[in-house]
Amino acid sequence: MTGIPSGDSVPSSTAPRGLSRRALLGLAAGAAGLVVGGGAGAAVATSVASGGARAAGDVHPFFGQHQAGISTPVQDHMHFAAFDMMARTSRDDLIELLTDWTYAASRMTQGLDVSATGAVGGSPEAPPDDTGEALGLPASNLTITFGFGPGLFEHDGVDRYGIADRRPASLERLPAFLNDELVPQLSDGDLCIQACADDPQVAVHAIRNLSRIAFGRATIRWSQLGFGRTSKTTSDQSTPRNLFGFKDGTANILATDSAALKQHVWAADDDVAWMAGGSYLVARKIAMTIETWDRVRLAEQDRIIGRDKAIGAPLSSPGGAETAEPDFTAPDAAGKPLIDPVSHVRLAHPTFNDGIRILRRGYNYVDGNDALGKLSAGLFFLSYQRTPEHFITLQRALAKDAMSEYIRHIGSGLWAVPAGVSEGSYIGSALFA
Amino acid sequence: MTGIPSGDSVPSSTAPRGLSRRALLGLAAGAAGLVVGGGAGAAVATSVASGGARAAGDVHPFFGQHQAGISTPVQDHMHFAAFDMMARTSRDDLIELLTDWTYAASRMTQGLDVSATGAVGGSPEAPPDDTGEALGLPASNLTITFGFGPGLFEHDGVDRYGIADRRPASLERLPAFLNDELVPQLSDGDLCIQACADDPQVAVHAIRNLSRIAFGRATIRWSQLGFGRTSKTTSDQSTPRNLFGFKDGTANILATDSAALKQHVWAADDDVAWMAGGSYLVARKIAMTIETWDRVRLAEQDRIIGRDKAIGAPLSSPGGAETAEPDFTAPDAAGKPLIDPVSHVRLAHPTFNDGIRILRRGYNYVDGNDALGKLSAGLFFLSYQRTPEHFITLQRALAKDAMSEYIRHIGSGLWAVPAGVSEGSYIGSALFA
Repeated sequence: MTGIPSGDSVPSSTAPRGLSRRALLGLAAGAAGLVVGGGAGAAVATSVASGGARAAGDVHPFFGQHQAGISTPVQDHMHFAAFDMMARTSRDDLIELLTDWTYAASRMTQGLDVSATGAVGGSPEAPPDDTGEALGLPASNLTITFGFGPGLFEHDGVDRYGIADRRPASLERLPAFLNDELVPQLSDGDLCIQACADDPQVAVHAIRNLSRIAFGRATIRWSQLGFGRTSKTTSDQSTPRNLFGFKDGTANILATDSAALKQHVWAADDDVAWMAGGSYLVARKIAMTIETWDRVRLAEQDRIIGRDKAIGAPLSSPGGAETAEPDFTAPDAAGKPLIDPVSHVRLAHPTFNDGIRILRRGYNYVDGNDALGKLSAGLFFLSYQRTPEHFITLQRALAKDAMSEYIRHIGSGLWAVPAGVSEGSYIGSALFA
Repeated sequence: MTGIPSGDSVPSSTAPRGLSRRALLGLAAGAAGLVVGGGAGAAVATSVASGGARAAGDVHPFFGQHQAGISTPVQDHMHFAAFDMMARTSRDDLIELLTDWTYAASRMTQGLDVSATGAVGGSPEAPPDDTGEALGLPASNLTITFGFGPGLFEHDGVDRYGIADRRPASLERLPAFLNDELVPQLSDGDLCIQACADDPQVAVHAIRNLSRIAFGRATIRWSQLGFGRTSKTTSDQSTPRNLFGFKDGTANILATDSAALKQHVWAADDDVAWMAGGSYLVARKIAMTIETWDRVRLAEQDRIIGRDKAIGAPLSSPGGAETAEPDFTAPDAAGKPLIDPVSHVRLAHPTFNDGIRILRRGYNYVDGNDALGKLSAGLFFLSYQRTPEHFITLQRALAKDAMSEYIRHIGSGLWAVPAGVSEGSYIGSALFA
């Protein structure tokens, strides 16, 4: 292991590993098969605070009680990747990978290159540590959030990393839901990384470099680019629109609502100890049949959602405000509820789901088009909740959703998102303590 | 045909069609099979200037001598789509489609909905004309640029639209180049639309709604989302970086350089008459083997490009400025040229290509990953030039490019981009005059 010099933001006194020698060798071993010398070793020899070539910008702290990227104000762009651990990797390999990822993420989120030598500061006779496409770009509010999938704890019945007995009881593959059409190549993964930023190039740079660091230990299983956040987590963010053209995320949990975060997002006190300060992340790739939706008359679109398209007001408040509280009993002239009992807003509402709320962080996506010329587009749904059971309850309630006709869930995954990192430690360290 | 009322920005005196009745019926005929009334007809009854629900923002004029989106300052995001005309469409269908697209583009580029009734202003008993996801968003510098492919003039030997004799001689499928690995489903197309904006949601909204308007006449053949412009067209834009981590577009033609635009971009005086004020667009989807590239030592990366990674200075000016003129004869200590003869900058330089320059407008792309966990990423190359021959000359010169080892051209297309539209006319009208 390469020791971290005193004065680095990951002090050597508490962190045994920086960017590990193995990762450095992986980064530095180029096509020419060069011998790696001080150039690569120097990657960990400089303080985070002093290195790096990128300009200052909007920066979120990396270290803290919770991982950034959950209650952080939702950024405009996302690159998400799920990884599988490679065969014959050991517990030490996994810890080393998490340590290397922590070091790289602690730098990139601050607008720095992935290491102190970075994109162009190392030896010309070695491949640069950093791939370079974010050189000169600000941090762009980048957050990098890590999660552990069920497969990390047990894979084909094998406890590869000696952590099976620490698996949270609720961390298992999500049950099948009505209308699931899941594609294995878009689902699950031993690990996941959510990179969000206001510049897609910065988010892509983060995933690319973290994938590169994983060389020989983990590989990308699937990944997704997203734009146009479909939620808000601060009261001054406008409510964005999803690709159905409707406002999405009106009643989301706000970053400032610490009571709601405690109640609905952060793992419960009776969860496994290492999840204290953590949360559970659900990702669902939801394809929308937008060409079909676009041919639905406006009144029917409104009925399906339960809100009006223009303003986002609940249909119980005609001409009202987006923020008006839905009244599910308010009748129309014929005595029927103004908000249809199978509308999306009604079925997902806390009132009918034991008060459950989840923090949504999804993005719109467009992946080209199918052979018939229809756009391959939809919602990359991301939600954080204190337990997967909350998502399962809501998703089961949506089985009757009138919207189901226009969507297909094609990807799915669940990950335990550990607490934030303190300086000198690494992501998920409590799991291995 | 629906007449356009006097006072509309597409005056009835010169434009026989607005958003045509056929398009309106296409837009309004929802799943419920509703009868279309005044709600849809009203779509053309309101001035462009007065309709629409979106906020003001940075706006480029739609009407003008040249189409916007060529010398316009490069926006941050792109959605590109190639269309094929449907079987059994007539010349009138094609003209009607172009007229409808012109009307819609003239509105959307100004930050307005696709029609005056737009996303929510029509009858609740009809599908809205506009899909709605850009409601509330500013114009975001949206430009929409249309092109005509070789197949529009002749398809399987058939002159479907009575324009075969007007095909520019140079408008034919690009020849095969060394290292081409073209995928038919990512190549060619009777028509193309390049939508660029500073907000991807605005660009996606434009392509989606134009595709919708094409219903029954043309369908998307292939499409691509791009981020991180890889060129600049104004002197105050920074030079961005491609996914090799290098600055790209340093010596691009600037929007303010009207002499260079006339010489290199706008169609020649001896071209077919209807192309006056137009240009030729080449699109190439260039996959990068970025994981392999990332393992190349820095000095070799620099050699391949011919510039240094950090600053972008030509290797003939060590420690110099990005804008320094490359000196291809400057020798190193051993007497060999500092800039390698097979470097990208050397092979593509005007000096060795009859003075040819092209206006580049490409974007980075990431399309998920392959089965081995490698990112499916690269450069969506777009260039405008006065004749396709200029691109062909440059691309042939690049056969020896040292960079070829790290790229594969997987998509390709060529389109004639007609002149700009004057108010009251439609895109490409001179072709049909």
